[in-house]
Amino acid sequence: MSVLPETPLLDTINSPADLRKLPVDSLPQLCEEIRKFLIYSLADNPGHFASSMGAVELTVALHYVFDTPDDRLVWDVGHQAYGHKLLTGRRESFAGNRRKDGLSGFPNPDESEYDTFAAGHASNSISAALGMAIASRLKNETPRRNVVAIVGDASISGGLAFEGINNAANTPNNLLIVLNDNDMSIDNNVGSLNSYLSRMTTSRKYNDLRYKAFKLMRRLHLVSDRRRGAMLRFNNSLKSLLTRQQNIFEGLNIRYFGPFDGHDVTEIVRVLSDIRDMEGPRILHLRTIKGKGYAPAEADPAHWHAPGRFDPETGRRATGNTEGKPLKYQDVFGNTLLELARKDDRIVAITAAMLSGTSVSTLQAEIPERVFDVGISEGHAVTFAGGLAKDGMKPFAAIYSSFLQRGYDHIIHDVALHRLPVTFCIDRAGLVGEDGATHHGAYDLAYLRTVPGMTIAAPRDEHALRNLLFTAATTDHGPFAIRYPRGSGKLVDWRNEMHLVEEGRGETLREGADITVLTLGPVSDDALAAAERAAADGVEAEVTDMVFLKPLDTDILRRVAAKGKPVITVEDGTVNGGLGGAVAEWMADHAPGVKVVRLGIPDRFIPQATPAEQHLMCGFDPDSIYSTILKTAGR
Amino acid sequence: MSVLPETPLLDTINSPADLRKLPVDSLPQLCEEIRKFLIYSLADNPGHFASSMGAVELTVALHYVFDTPDDRLVWDVGHQAYGHKLLTGRRESFAGNRRKDGLSGFPNPDESEYDTFAAGHASNSISAALGMAIASRLKNETPRRNVVAIVGDASISGGLAFEGINNAANTPNNLLIVLNDNDMSIDNNVGSLNSYLSRMTTSRKYNDLRYKAFKLMRRLHLVSDRRRGAMLRFNNSLKSLLTRQQNIFEGLNIRYFGPFDGHDVTEIVRVLSDIRDMEGPRILHLRTIKGKGYAPAEADPAHWHAPGRFDPETGRRATGNTEGKPLKYQDVFGNTLLELARKDDRIVAITAAMLSGTSVSTLQAEIPERVFDVGISEGHAVTFAGGLAKDGMKPFAAIYSSFLQRGYDHIIHDVALHRLPVTFCIDRAGLVGEDGATHHGAYDLAYLRTVPGMTIAAPRDEHALRNLLFTAATTDHGPFAIRYPRGSGKLVDWRNEMHLVEEGRGETLREGADITVLTLGPVSDDALAAAERAAADGVEAEVTDMVFLKPLDTDILRRVAAKGKPVITVEDGTVNGGLGGAVAEWMADHAPGVKVVRLGIPDRFIPQATPAEQHLMCGFDPDSIYSTILKTAGR
Repeated sequence: MSVLPETPLLDTINSPADLRKLPVDSLPQLCEEIRKFLIYSLADNPGHFASSMGAVELTVALHYVFDTPDDRLVWDVGHQAYGHKLLTGRRESFAGNRRKDGLSGFPNPDESEYDTFAAGHASNSISAALGMAIASRLKNETPRRNVVAIVGDASISGGLAFEGINNAANTPNNLLIVLNDNDMSIDNNVGSLNSYLSRMTTSRKYNDLRYKAFKLMRRLHLVSDRRRGAMLRFNNSLKSLLTRQQNIFEGLNIRYFGPFDGHDVTEIVRVLSDIRDMEGPRILHLRTIKGKGYAPAEADPAHWHAPGRFDPETGRRATGNTEGKPLKYQDVFGNTLLELARKDDRIVAITAAMLSGTSVSTLQAEIPERVFDVGISEGHAVTFAGGLAKDGMKPFAAIYSSFLQRGYDHIIHDVALHRLPVTFCIDRAGLVGEDGATHHGAYDLAYLRTVPGMTIAAPRDEHALRNLLFTAATTDHGPFAIRYPRGSGKLVDWRNEMHLVEEGRGETLREGADITVLTLGPVSDDALAAAERAAADGVEAEVTDMVFLKPLDTDILRRVAAKGKPVITVEDGTVNGGLGGAVAEWMADHAPGVKVVRLGIPDRFIPQATPAEQHLMCGFDPDSIYSTILKTAGR
Repeated sequence: MSVLPETPLLDTINSPADLRKLPVDSLPQLCEEIRKFLIYSLADNPGHFASSMGAVELTVALHYVFDTPDDRLVWDVGHQAYGHKLLTGRRESFAGNRRKDGLSGFPNPDESEYDTFAAGHASNSISAALGMAIASRLKNETPRRNVVAIVGDASISGGLAFEGINNAANTPNNLLIVLNDNDMSIDNNVGSLNSYLSRMTTSRKYNDLRYKAFKLMRRLHLVSDRRRGAMLRFNNSLKSLLTRQQNIFEGLNIRYFGPFDGHDVTEIVRVLSDIRDMEGPRILHLRTIKGKGYAPAEADPAHWHAPGRFDPETGRRATGNTEGKPLKYQDVFGNTLLELARKDDRIVAITAAMLSGTSVSTLQAEIPERVFDVGISEGHAVTFAGGLAKDGMKPFAAIYSSFLQRGYDHIIHDVALHRLPVTFCIDRAGLVGEDGATHHGAYDLAYLRTVPGMTIAAPRDEHALRNLLFTAATTDHGPFAIRYPRGSGKLVDWRNEMHLVEEGRGETLREGADITVLTLGPVSDDALAAAERAAADGVEAEVTDMVFLKPLDTDILRRVAAKGKPVITVEDGTVNGGLGGAVAEWMADHAPGVKVVRLGIPDRFIPQATPAEQHLMCGFDPDSIYSTILKTAGR
């Protein structure tokens, strides 16, 4: 346990009102203390690190200049918002970050009035902040309420952010967009908007000049909001002349300022004060360094995105001994995809800013030309995969379950409608633990089941995952979804000889005459453990892994129904419309009289905790399954 | 019945190969004949009119210059693709457009090899075409396969299109994007990208000059693809100098050409020939006139988007006598929203390029400052509504069911997670008829049911719709979905005195001891009719409209279960996980023994036909319900 360093100035700040009492020249020291606090806290209680380190100065400046919480700060992706939590009364509770009954790892309106909106899925801040800005305008609030969206350069390239900008620029509002540009998403950033942003930075001198000219002219009353149009045009031409660049934002009618040094807190305070009261939408572009102020993180920001435990003095990360331990599911996927791609030129992989998170990076390292990281754009990832499939490729789209929700329509319209052979490799399916409510893959089973022609499977272990991938790669099929959880599997010797899986065929793991437990995926093990305990109490429970949610194995259902005993379904997904729903539908129609008890994620949002705690909260941990078996069997 | 005019040249074109045999100077005549054909065909058999009229020349030029079907044309939103259908072997079957067993109203790969991708939901063409272009590149196809996305100015402003462009500009490919810019979506266009496009047009002279300079330099070998970068920079600076404008596309590294006159077919052929074989992604901007060549449509393109039957000589549209007939559901909604908004300043309406289609236009006409048409951006529409709700407004988001699929994640993450009071007014729910497979609102009940805290209701008639809207407007609640069908209701006297509806309370419409039919929405009438017929056969069927899918009325379910008789569910939505699923889940758990037969949209895509024909195809028309009642009751 590291000892927290002294943070005398930070200790005086219990709310942004305290911060605003400080003289501006003490802000650099405060920033330094926040960094120290973050380093030592996160060394012990792991969380997102590098993003918040890069956002310290802009966070301090925003709370210093704006009258929060009356003014609204809308954070895009909460990775960057730890400093914000420290300044808004949560310094002392920060030790419980990402823990059960502790702080959410992301801004959370249920936690603090300073957290204005959910920030687990990228690119939503501009749209939400625009809504708030327009609400304020419609209510004629005085003094005017300022609304600020703080968005990273990766998030701003998402389609949702573009839709927000496109709308913001055309509707009367005073929205300020702060672009926190560190030229990184979790991995390296991609996309033309991003290369565009990089090029802009090269013209820093010009922008600085321009900003000073603007201030001077305003002071001399040469420029006013009424004359803004003319001023903008003048600025644009001047800028194009000087830099031979195009300013996309001004092309879209958003007044642009920047780029400025995002680590000069005094400068940011000055700029923010200057532009705070302007009319109309505007964007402030700050260049920051991900991991700023901690050398190991600056040197390798991707690994320090969420580094786990580390030694604050040496920067040595606690990797743990993985020797002789199971790999993560994602790595079994990544390695297997590479094996399959080596044998079939038509296999390509698509991911959406989750290259290392999905381990598609393994394929990329060997065959980069067949890997497409399309950035934060799940909808495009799916439709793009559809286009690839239409012309003969075999796309594997690796996307986290929760984020794939953004591609629901695209799965229906751009893939399933014409039975295109896209394989969806759905990582982080089910409850994900510490990331909490915004990140669970709770709905995929239910929403994919609505899609005609979709095959949906969930492997029970690493061998099953590999067999499913092999089957998807080597057979003719339409859309094929394979969902697997976050974290490690259970087999040290994961590299089996792969074989074909029969589509729609389940597997009985344990016989039992008294009751049947139908499962899907790794929860089968918990069901098995529960069944063994129940057997000791004299209740013999069959445990059958359906493997496929769709098509359902109706032979099994028929056999199970014929037993005339109750059925319990267990799934790491919502109880509305998933495995339990599918089984209940079939039974109610074909075998009324069979009771079906559904265990899974209940119809509410599940907060941060460990996965085991969450399973317990939801009632499908081994104990709960055990007691449900006994109760349903009439004991 | 209008007599088709003579089209001697068009009659010789049975495939694009025939077209390519024509001399270029005969193309204007061909275009004229296509227009005549469209006018006279669509006068009798209604369909989308103005968009295809505006796209005649570009369609002819594309098939003339590109080697279709080996080269790929990917149409964005099929409205514009009728000319394409005529040129690709479907002239004679065009009379069956949008009819059962006839042509799809949109490009459909199952119908023709010239139709490369589904085109019912906007903004997907760039992503899909990029997939095809990269597939071709990966396969090292020679001669090179050209891929062209043809996208309207409304579609290109969607987030998905932006994601496609952002990716296209950063991945090696030879994609050509043709921007068919008529400055209109179905209604007037909105958004800053669109005003940007309008401004570009004003610089036509410059662009023309620039294009000529480019051609000259290429002829003189002063410019090559190797030197493209330098050339682009030169062009950009020149352009900025001359026009004081920013070119967004070139900012994003997409080579831009235009705008050109989209009705000068010879010119388009020349430009397309010039840029066809260039390397790298590029965009060709064509200015067109929606409805071009038919004066009434040019004068009022919004009404001529899909005008219904009309007299080709006079342009008089067959409005039909609506006197004494029920309004459309959308108009009851629009009028009621206005009534409610007059009484509550906090009510605002959001729609996504469906202003007149949802009749939000009624509110806009009187209180424009509280209506937000955000353009084709359903995701933003939802998140923006969340932001408005967060700061005290009562947003009503009116979006077609099928398009709301694009907002699924946003409903979960940006609205439901914090129980924000957004009312979703879901138009075109259920089977929609002639627009076919891409447009059905088949999944909303099932996918919304997965969302925690979501209230889901479906009114049976116009009075019920008004009562639900009144309830949503005047009570405290989280997200509240109200779904209603396309087309007319049944009540001439729709303007009832509105009253509160108890959330989660169903209504029994007919008693019956032998069997129970549980319904949702207007299909209740079909169930009632079927029950009356069954009564004549001696089977007494209860018919109960659940009104709410969520929360379910468990009092009713308990009472129905206690009867010990089978239950039939009827819904205008997928049988997977909707009303039938919810009832089956409840019965299997709480009242095993009750058989549940689910009628609704089966697990496949339903093609174009009339709604009545589609209900029959799906087995929930009155006859099918009747025979299901008898069969399930054991007759």
